[in-house]
Amino acid sequence: MTNINQYLKKIGLEGKKASRLMAKASTQQKNDALTHLIQLLNTKAKTILKANEKDIQVAKKNKLDRASIDRLIISTKTIDSMIKGIQGIVDLKDPIGEIMHLNTRPSGIQVGQMRVALGVIGMIYESRPNVTIDAASLSIKSGNAIILRGGSEAIHSNIALSNIIHEALKKAGLSVQAVQVIDSTDRSIVEAMIKLDNYIDVIIPRGGKSLTKMISDEATVPVIKHLDGNCHVFVDKNADLDKALKIIENSKTQRLGTCNTTESLLISKDIARDFLPKIVKMLHQHKVEVRGCKETLKLVRGIKAASEDDFYTEYLDAIISCKIIDDVDDAINHINQYSSHHTDAIVTENYGHAMRFLKEVDSSSVMVNASTRFADGFEYGLGAEIGISTNKLHARGPVGLEGLTSLKYIVLGNGHIRK
Amino acid sequence: MTNINQYLKKIGLEGKKASRLMAKASTQQKNDALTHLIQLLNTKAKTILKANEKDIQVAKKNKLDRASIDRLIISTKTIDSMIKGIQGIVDLKDPIGEIMHLNTRPSGIQVGQMRVALGVIGMIYESRPNVTIDAASLSIKSGNAIILRGGSEAIHSNIALSNIIHEALKKAGLSVQAVQVIDSTDRSIVEAMIKLDNYIDVIIPRGGKSLTKMISDEATVPVIKHLDGNCHVFVDKNADLDKALKIIENSKTQRLGTCNTTESLLISKDIARDFLPKIVKMLHQHKVEVRGCKETLKLVRGIKAASEDDFYTEYLDAIISCKIIDDVDDAINHINQYSSHHTDAIVTENYGHAMRFLKEVDSSSVMVNASTRFADGFEYGLGAEIGISTNKLHARGPVGLEGLTSLKYIVLGNGHIRK
Repeated sequence: MTNINQYLKKIGLEGKKASRLMAKASTQQKNDALTHLIQLLNTKAKTILKANEKDIQVAKKNKLDRASIDRLIISTKTIDSMIKGIQGIVDLKDPIGEIMHLNTRPSGIQVGQMRVALGVIGMIYESRPNVTIDAASLSIKSGNAIILRGGSEAIHSNIALSNIIHEALKKAGLSVQAVQVIDSTDRSIVEAMIKLDNYIDVIIPRGGKSLTKMISDEATVPVIKHLDGNCHVFVDKNADLDKALKIIENSKTQRLGTCNTTESLLISKDIARDFLPKIVKMLHQHKVEVRGCKETLKLVRGIKAASEDDFYTEYLDAIISCKIIDDVDDAINHINQYSSHHTDAIVTENYGHAMRFLKEVDSSSVMVNASTRFADGFEYGLGAEIGISTNKLHARGPVGLEGLTSLKYIVLGNGHIRK
Repeated sequence: MTNINQYLKKIGLEGKKASRLMAKASTQQKNDALTHLIQLLNTKAKTILKANEKDIQVAKKNKLDRASIDRLIISTKTIDSMIKGIQGIVDLKDPIGEIMHLNTRPSGIQVGQMRVALGVIGMIYESRPNVTIDAASLSIKSGNAIILRGGSEAIHSNIALSNIIHEALKKAGLSVQAVQVIDSTDRSIVEAMIKLDNYIDVIIPRGGKSLTKMISDEATVPVIKHLDGNCHVFVDKNADLDKALKIIENSKTQRLGTCNTTESLLISKDIARDFLPKIVKMLHQHKVEVRGCKETLKLVRGIKAASEDDFYTEYLDAIISCKIIDDVDDAINHINQYSSHHTDAIVTENYGHAMRFLKEVDSSSVMVNASTRFADGFEYGLGAEIGISTNKLHARGPVGLEGLTSLKYIVLGNGHIRK
């Protein structure tokens, strides 16, 4: 542990130093680094695919499950999408240095806020090596330094990617320590990293719920995270039922395993008798199992009963819970109680109900007449996302460049003193 | 401890319930409550002064130090300034419900952010009973519920104040649980309160460094805080020395014990020979002891040598450290190393130096040609402040109404599904 602490302290110190340099790097330099990175991903694709092949072989030998191996694979298509992602970040305006709300106070001083980099970001993630590129690119553009701790199963891929990131940084005249990849697979590194308050400004975990929960429970560094996405669609009595059916279908079945997939359905009692059978039929066509409340079971046959636990569950699978609801109040209360505060949607044509739902549902994304699948940095126009946050402090919802920055107050005087 | 946990859980649950009601309270209701509170402070002034008298008597009996007793005293003047503070908060626009950045995405959905209340605030503070009124008023206006844990020495005053706050809330038709004052003086309550993640969204400590440090080390609830204010004034070689002298005088001597008081002076070597003696003379006239670096000692006689520790120290007293500095780079590096990242100022007429200082000094308030004493919610136009934060995440600098709110994403569709 002493060795690990020394190792991490060195990395932390280098990160801190690099963060000071990144904070004052020009937009040109940061974009240059990203453009070089695009070129290197093209010219060195073979080296990356070869390193990735090693990880795949080890994973197969270790009998990793199919889904995890799928997430691990880098193909030429993956590289193309990495490149597209980086180009998107190049195209975004530089958030750093923006001055806002500058106004003159009665004392004569001018007060405003300046957007600045956070400092050092610690990223802890599993499997997908593309996160290495996404996170590094966002960190570079936002003027931060980043310490990346990927999963041991992706170690060869991550080292190959970090080599070309370093080459790109060097070519742009930036410190290579702005992106550090931890090349040790020692598990206790994570435990030590999340307590590195003096060197790391924020920890962003991306991975399974148990990893995220451990990090969020144990960390002394602030954590930007979401634990799970128990997302809801509520169909109000005033809903356009055609829209509702399409939104439910898209929210639940477009992708089963994403955090913005709908896991629970709330249907107003006034429309349930006619509408519920249609929903269930559609879901069954998609091979989605429906688990219903007592009222649901009365209205549609052949449905499993939902337990209390079901309504708290993020299935990430072809299962959905369903509850018949009295009215919009009942729906808001149910969601504020059972939701993981990630993303919740109402389908309604009633203005008042829509407004109340928007105001009173306490989730990071609240939607009217749209699929919960839209909760995503790209769909929201953030250019990219480093994660999705259900925190209420700092970044909430999809976290893009702005979420990796802070605001400091600036005061401009001309010899002003306080009276 | 079980009893305390049960007691706090009950308070937490009531707070959470009240926070849902406060989140949807109208601006009118919130302002009504504050206006009733002003009236009650007028009509029930006697009751408050009487309760305060009890605290003073106990404090004197317990031989509390003079400064602490001073902070404890409520006079008719204190009540007037409470009333002025509340009126200021009534006059502020309601931050809740503001929708910003609403724009239409290529998919057709509209995405924006809505400002919402944080939920439940936990405030832990010492001595000054006026914090009870300030914090409760800010919390009411920002649509939050608050749990107040004041010092045991102010318990009678705080209970008297909480009684009229409850009366004001009731008169406005709001839940009295929106402001709960913990009436037990058991010390272990603080330790339990800062771990109440399920019920409290943020902890704000106001008090001595040791209390704040304990809370920030032990809390699992996020904490908005600053530990100390080791503020700097750097006099650049291009400074207007008349302005510099006045700014140093005001920054150090206007109030000795506040967190935005300057504790360390950096003087450019190019102007030190002539200018430093004038500064020292002025500071000595104010009976401020100067502790200098080696170079300082060479230039002015009769000064104590500063230790390495001195440059890290917030004196809160008639002492200031002084260091001769090579140039603006040296000053920025020194400040980023030794400052507590609260408030730091440069005095210069050089545009480039001013801009570099603003951009590169990593503090919550960075100033040009102005006294560090301006770092204050009222001076910045926030209307009031519940504290000053040196956090980089969420609120940074003086924390007013906005610091007590969060942004959630809202998505408006018309049956939109993700392609």
